[in-house]
Amino acid sequence: METKKIFDYQVDDNMALFVLIKGADVRIAKNGKKFIAFTFADRSGEISAKFWDASEQDIELFEAGKVVFLQGKRETYQQNPQIKIYKLRLATEMEPADPSLYLQSAPESTQDMEKELDEVIFEITNPNWNRIVRYLLKKYHAQFFSFPAAKKNHHDFAGGLAFHTLSILHLAQSVVKEYPGLNAPLLYSGVILHDLGKSLELSGPVATVYTVPGNLLGHIVLVDEEITEACDKLGIDKMSQDAILLRHMIVSHHGLLEYGSPVRPHLLEAEILHHLDDLDASIMMMNKALDHTAPGEYTERIFGMDGRNFYRPTEDGSLAKPE
Amino acid sequence: METKKIFDYQVDDNMALFVLIKGADVRIAKNGKKFIAFTFADRSGEISAKFWDASEQDIELFEAGKVVFLQGKRETYQQNPQIKIYKLRLATEMEPADPSLYLQSAPESTQDMEKELDEVIFEITNPNWNRIVRYLLKKYHAQFFSFPAAKKNHHDFAGGLAFHTLSILHLAQSVVKEYPGLNAPLLYSGVILHDLGKSLELSGPVATVYTVPGNLLGHIVLVDEEITEACDKLGIDKMSQDAILLRHMIVSHHGLLEYGSPVRPHLLEAEILHHLDDLDASIMMMNKALDHTAPGEYTERIFGMDGRNFYRPTEDGSLAKPE
Amino acid sequence: METKKIFDYQVDDNMALFVLIKGADVRIAKNGKKFIAFTFADRSGEISAKFWDASEQDIELFEAGKVVFLQGKRETYQQNPQIKIYKLRLATEMEPADPSLYLQSAPESTQDMEKELDEVIFEITNPNWNRIVRYLLKKYHAQFFSFPAAKKNHHDFAGGLAFHTLSILHLAQSVVKEYPGLNAPLLYSGVILHDLGKSLELSGPVATVYTVPGNLLGHIVLVDEEITEACDKLGIDKMSQDAILLRHMIVSHHGLLEYGSPVRPHLLEAEILHHLDDLDASIMMMNKALDHTAPGEYTERIFGMDGRNFYRPTEDGSLAKPE
Amino acid sequence: METKKIFDYQVDDNMALFVLIKGADVRIAKNGKKFIAFTFADRSGEISAKFWDASEQDIELFEAGKVVFLQGKRETYQQNPQIKIYKLRLATEMEPADPSLYLQSAPESTQDMEKELDEVIFEITNPNWNRIVRYLLKKYHAQFFSFPAAKKNHHDFAGGLAFHTLSILHLAQSVVKEYPGLNAPLLYSGVILHDLGKSLELSGPVATVYTVPGNLLGHIVLVDEEITEACDKLGIDKMSQDAILLRHMIVSHHGLLEYGSPVRPHLLEAEILHHLDDLDASIMMMNKALDHTAPGEYTERIFGMDGRNFYRPTEDGSLAKPE
Amino acid sequence: METKKIFDYQVDDNMALFVLIKGADVRIAKNGKKFIAFTFADRSGEISAKFWDASEQDIELFEAGKVVFLQGKRETYQQNPQIKIYKLRLATEMEPADPSLYLQSAPESTQDMEKELDEVIFEITNPNWNRIVRYLLKKYHAQFFSFPAAKKNHHDFAGGLAFHTLSILHLAQSVVKEYPGLNAPLLYSGVILHDLGKSLELSGPVATVYTVPGNLLGHIVLVDEEITEACDKLGIDKMSQDAILLRHMIVSHHGLLEYGSPVRPHLLEAEILHHLDDLDASIMMMNKALDHTAPGEYTERIFGMDGRNFYRPTEDGSLAKPE
Amino acid sequence: METKKIFDYQVDDNMALFVLIKGADVRIAKNGKKFIAFTFADRSGEISAKFWDASEQDIELFEAGKVVFLQGKRETYQQNPQIKIYKLRLATEMEPADPSLYLQSAPESTQDMEKELDEVIFEITNPNWNRIVRYLLKKYHAQFFSFPAAKKNHHDFAGGLAFHTLSILHLAQSVVKEYPGLNAPLLYSGVILHDLGKSLELSGPVATVYTVPGNLLGHIVLVDEEITEACDKLGIDKMSQDAILLRHMIVSHHGLLEYGSPVRPHLLEAEILHHLDDLDASIMMMNKALDHTAPGEYTERIFGMDGRNFYRPTEDGSLAKPE
Repeated sequence: METKKIFDYQVDDNMALFVLIKGADVRIAKNGKKFIAFTFADRSGEISAKFWDASEQDIELFEAGKVVFLQGKRETYQQNPQIKIYKLRLATEMEPADPSLYLQSAPESTQDMEKELDEVIFEITNPNWNRIVRYLLKKYHAQFFSFPAAKKNHHDFAGGLAFHTLSILHLAQSVVKEYPGLNAPLLYSGVILHDLGKSLELSGPVATVYTVPGNLLGHIVLVDEEITEACDKLGIDKMSQDAILLRHMIVSHHGLLEYGSPVRPHLLEAEILHHLDDLDASIMMMNKALDHTAPGEYTERIFGMDGRNFYRPTEDGSLAKPE
Repeated sequence: METKKIFDYQVDDNMALFVLIKGADVRIAKNGKKFIAFTFADRSGEISAKFWDASEQDIELFEAGKVVFLQGKRETYQQNPQIKIYKLRLATEMEPADPSLYLQSAPESTQDMEKELDEVIFEITNPNWNRIVRYLLKKYHAQFFSFPAAKKNHHDFAGGLAFHTLSILHLAQSVVKEYPGLNAPLLYSGVILHDLGKSLELSGPVATVYTVPGNLLGHIVLVDEEITEACDKLGIDKMSQDAILLRHMIVSHHGLLEYGSPVRPHLLEAEILHHLDDLDASIMMMNKALDHTAPGEYTERIFGMDGRNFYRPTEDGSLAKPE
Repeated sequence: METKKIFDYQVDDNMALFVLIKGADVRIAKNGKKFIAFTFADRSGEISAKFWDASEQDIELFEAGKVVFLQGKRETYQQNPQIKIYKLRLATEMEPADPSLYLQSAPESTQDMEKELDEVIFEITNPNWNRIVRYLLKKYHAQFFSFPAAKKNHHDFAGGLAFHTLSILHLAQSVVKEYPGLNAPLLYSGVILHDLGKSLELSGPVATVYTVPGNLLGHIVLVDEEITEACDKLGIDKMSQDAILLRHMIVSHHGLLEYGSPVRPHLLEAEILHHLDDLDASIMMMNKALDHTAPGEYTERIFGMDGRNFYRPTEDGSLAKPE
Repeated sequence: METKKIFDYQVDDNMALFVLIKGADVRIAKNGKKFIAFTFADRSGEISAKFWDASEQDIELFEAGKVVFLQGKRETYQQNPQIKIYKLRLATEMEPADPSLYLQSAPESTQDMEKELDEVIFEITNPNWNRIVRYLLKKYHAQFFSFPAAKKNHHDFAGGLAFHTLSILHLAQSVVKEYPGLNAPLLYSGVILHDLGKSLELSGPVATVYTVPGNLLGHIVLVDEEITEACDKLGIDKMSQDAILLRHMIVSHHGLLEYGSPVRPHLLEAEILHHLDDLDASIMMMNKALDHTAPGEYTERIFGMDGRNFYRPTEDGSLAKPE
Repeated sequence: METKKIFDYQVDDNMALFVLIKGADVRIAKNGKKFIAFTFADRSGEISAKFWDASEQDIELFEAGKVVFLQGKRETYQQNPQIKIYKLRLATEMEPADPSLYLQSAPESTQDMEKELDEVIFEITNPNWNRIVRYLLKKYHAQFFSFPAAKKNHHDFAGGLAFHTLSILHLAQSVVKEYPGLNAPLLYSGVILHDLGKSLELSGPVATVYTVPGNLLGHIVLVDEEITEACDKLGIDKMSQDAILLRHMIVSHHGLLEYGSPVRPHLLEAEILHHLDDLDASIMMMNKALDHTAPGEYTERIFGMDGRNFYRPTEDGSLAKPE
Repeated sequence: METKKIFDYQVDDNMALFVLIKGADVRIAKNGKKFIAFTFADRSGEISAKFWDASEQDIELFEAGKVVFLQGKRETYQQNPQIKIYKLRLATEMEPADPSLYLQSAPESTQDMEKELDEVIFEITNPNWNRIVRYLLKKYHAQFFSFPAAKKNHHDFAGGLAFHTLSILHLAQSVVKEYPGLNAPLLYSGVILHDLGKSLELSGPVATVYTVPGNLLGHIVLVDEEITEACDKLGIDKMSQDAILLRHMIVSHHGLLEYGSPVRPHLLEAEILHHLDDLDASIMMMNKALDHTAPGEYTERIFGMDGRNFYRPTEDGSLAKPE
């Protein structure tokens, strides 16, 4: 059995490997027949492929979330890699058919992230915030360490939610060091909980979609209510200043009403959280695009960065000639 | 004792009456001395007055919320009524010194409003919504029937919150009649609870200001959490469709993210609630301004209507000449 | 002869019926050959179909506005119904070839609408407005009761203009009842005339397009001039307050300059007309989309509602699982 | 009798001269007494002055539109010229009491402007447009040559409307010469009529205010209806292409819906008219402000130019030092 | 050898001619095979064509910038002209294979434009501006007279930069004549240099793309630095008023920050330059679209004019019937 | 000689001390007499005071930039501290009359900042960037270490430019540590030069105003040209990739065109610089306002933070009661 991954194959190589079906859109070709537009994935990345003249049975079999054995050839289409499919069949039970084997995941292990997080929680010296944070991390432990931070755009991989949270925490620690007088426990508590509502807004790490509560309420409202419930269970007055400040951190973290925060930041620490969240997500989106871009070229236009493209400088300092 | 009210006096009349100090701003005149810019109120309306050369003792005595005996003369300043103060003293305990005697209030009695409301609740045939609505109206009964619907702009009088809610309910009933197939229980429940969070966002009917939770969380988040708490107490699953739909009604009722709703309406009934809320508030603001405007003139520019002024037509159909 | 309508057929049923060609776009397939993208319609609704390898003669024959006899099969494509065409020919003179037999129309008969309208006109007690309204309704009687209210989006069916007008009138009557002191004759006159300019802006009920005057002047300007002409014919001074107020109602009814009103509403009744027009159009658009949406699903994104989609709740209260 | 004009006096000069009261706002001073904030004008310009401790009789006497004999001293207040009033009385009938003697007016005589206009009309070779233009210029001859082009901002002087129109006509002639193929008769007709509605929107050259029709309909709608009436009188079909094109020129000339045009330009000549109108108004506003600005200084912020200020360069090329 | 040009052929004519490949996008058809979407050009204009089933060798051969001998048929597709390709081969060295033979170019010869420009430079009486303008025109002479003024939209032909500059100069001369007191030398200098930075921002007249400095700095910054360098070489103080004023003209000429000017115009002449630049570009875009539009029809929507389409009136004054 | 500073005095204390006149606006009181609205400053902060009945001589003497001996009393006016002036005279030469003694300055010494900066420059391993940075820091050494970073809002104190730059550098170092693969030399070079143009845009540390070049070109354009000049002097090709990248860092650092960057960031490091600049300025503005705010209160509305106010929590966790 071949164990090479998708991006171990070069253009024009014949391929034979197990992959996860991440997306499977059924469309109709101009000749009137149906085809399936696949997105295949493994831990080396994602790639597209078209399956022409699909029968109703094919459509039923090859759904998103299934693992398949794929034979084909790697090609290039409009500067993007794609696969020409020769043959496709479902993986059997005897084969590596578990979808989680094919998911991209955070560059750090769950254990390492847990350990780092524990150290920061230790610095949350306010007992109310400390207890709320611990309570909610315990309740949503599984989701926090397995969910992506978004459906697409940035940190859209298993464990992305925890990894995004930790990156912001590191930046927050630097900010605390640079500006004396900040309320570090408040800032850290806000960072840890700011996106926890995604546990309820998104469906999970595989074939991620928005849940109905996610669509109708959004992760900001969903986590606010989790905090008040935590206050209830822990005997903390939800209208006390401690509770209000922490809730404000989460509720305002999108920064602008237009981005879905019902109030704008009115605490120094809330404004900082908003900036750091934005910075980390931006760097993640740019890096993801630059990784696939050759020196002297521009990335594709990035939707989450207002449609801008980014230049990757040449390494020898020579200027790319206009094409 | 004189029982005439503020607006029973005509321009140039000498006045002597009890009034409530609704606002008392201390400023410094160009001659370097302090003066108090008063807003006096009774049930006939509000009027301004300046108190020149105020001593520190005057400033301490004549605070917002106090009832005073006022002697002066009604004048006009830049087309607005104002009072020239001759004499001012606090009301004694023997006199009508209770502020609530001077508050403007809803044009309907609390009993009438309660009765009307009860009839509508009878039409909320979904048991979950019915119980949540009853639970919260009971919990916030006092506030619901005494609070204003806003700090200023519209329904800024005692009982304004209940009165605003009922006006929208009446419109909602007409809409239900006009468009078959609407979910009337959902619409009515949403209407009743949509502004209940103002009970927590505002400080009360007299000298109304925003509370800290009101500023940092806003009434939309504050009431959402009350609904989930109600679910908890009533044994209703807060993640059930019933709970999510009702919460969505409230959470989306400002219509646009820019207006502080964390999500836009994604239910037919939520979109309708937003329209009716807007319509009732607009009519209230325009009527309030038109009430003080002579035929053939324009109202002042109304802040809450994007700074527009409104024309009050002459009664005989003649066109006002340009001034 | 088969008398079943389009939506009487289920998916995979063979079909044989007369339909109206509502749209017929000629495109080129990737194989280099032409095809026609049809929209077929009858009173049960509209459906798409592709006609592959179309000859020049086919293109000439099968134009929008023609009635054809269609044989094919009902299918589903990307969750939308569509037809696979087996055979197509023009209807002959002996057959039901009159396009008006296939137009969707208002859910109320013209007589009923006329009667309702007459009753409201009776309440327009101002003689000038009453005469102008009667004059213009008489002049544009045919168009008023047969035109759609828009080219697409809302009330885009025969009689839609009258039906939309009546729905707003009903809401206006409720508002008049709720808020004492409104100028009901002005409001009703404004409602009746507000969209009458569409008689000149649009080409008619079948294969509706914008006329050149519609494109270059718009229905607001077109109807304003009709009112001044009516004044002329009826001996009413077009610069009298009555005329100016009525014209303002129409001219400002889009509410915002950005939406094509050259002035914003500066009359209480004009502001109300704007709100009710918006509300009725919104409900119509949402209902049209929800009608084709299964419980537990979202509608398509509605262009006229800022691209939002709307959730249709399940009937048993269970929450749809994320797909 | 003194014949010096306002700006013939230098700072600290004693003044004694007749002036027109252009504005007279009654306000209340911090000492509780009324004062009048005057704007005095003659053909040399406008200047402010405060009249302290005004009696009710003073207020009644010294209204906008009256001519007064003023004694005082020229001073400077916050870098703007102002007058300290010593004495003020109404001009008697024996004195130069006609307000028109004090109005600023166009730098060209009415005769000259008429003659120039006639020459351009000669170039309007399309008979329909020629007749409509002549008809309306005849009907509004008095207003066209005496009204300002705006209440303030630009061309706010007697004859400003005609002068603004002619400036644009000159630019239009240059554009016609530069770009072959333009429809010159259409462009010239549009230029001549574009602001004629100001004859109805504004009250006149002295103490200019908006009329009620001006406020409720705006000059664009008001002139459109004049054109259709002209068509009527002249036997031109108002729905002919000629009439529609001309009306589109006027109706679209503000360029953007946000600026009050109900449709945007969809004719080449309409787009050009919009640009030239904008250019002439901008130059007028900048020049008006620069005229009162010393070399090396900035003008005040100009409201009609988005609040920008403009630099007047030094004449010797030296750079003004930062203050 | 055939010497007819592309638009000398009518629809359905067989064609055989040399053309330049202006664009050659490789795409994949729904049948899975590659095709090339060509834009062919000669001095009569541009036209599209699809080359089906393209081999890798075809793709390599038929690149943008190459001259080919084309055999095919002129057709119409969605109201746009296109070519059905029968045969295609590269032009040989013996044939007219020089791309510059096929480029559209300015309607005026370089000599004529140079002469006109020289005359205007003569009017730049300020010696500093005169020397800077001459210096830079000399340095960038080749580019100024051969580059387009933009990659697409307006003046996108060889020599477009010079032609656009001269058109604005002509308008500027008319403005100088109309408004006495303008600083003509400053205005003319600003006009001449305003787009010179395009010499560095764009790659050249054929297959025009943005250079890396063009993308990362933009033509405004690129030319500003050229002016300061010119000051250096010519011994002019780059912080003198003369230098600052000239640089401000260029730096502010996009008018709004949103359009890429780092400062808005704060000189009368800078504001005028912005208006004239905008006017000339707009006329060019509209004329380009109207040239391909039949009387009684609308142009396509023009991207650079906010997506508006423009009506081309019929010549006999009849109104086009709604389609 | 008194050595207490302004804020060493409590409310109602009599004061006698030397202060710097930071602002001196002459206004006219309602009694018609002139007064001076002073802003006095020393290293403890700034405070307002009104000087009533000012003579022309007073106005001439007491200009901004002068040091005076002030006798008065500290008071409170609308919650802001102010001084009631008893007596005022200019400081003599024998007294501490040097304005720089009264300027607020960076919390770090110039030496310390220089040393820190040197260490970072050491990490700029690219020789071109290293040389440009050193060249410009040497040329503008005095300004870099003495100028404020802005006229008001943030870092508006002597040395603010260097201090702001260093704060961003520290954040940049943390970011470099967190995200492997960043181009640290490019980021650091960009940070150091990003605001250096303020040396030319502003007039200096005392009585800071914008220079004419600052107004007409802005600091972004001013520094870009300094970099190209540096390239010239150092023999670095200004169109090389190194030069273009560095210039792009500076030119794009405002992030949005609306904020005055002629291009948006198209390099990962440029986007990061923009975020960190924004974050540091925001924290500085919030901290400045919070420093003057009591626990449980809100700051004034901060112009540079979109007019938001910020809550300073109480220290004991109790919630401030609504006033």
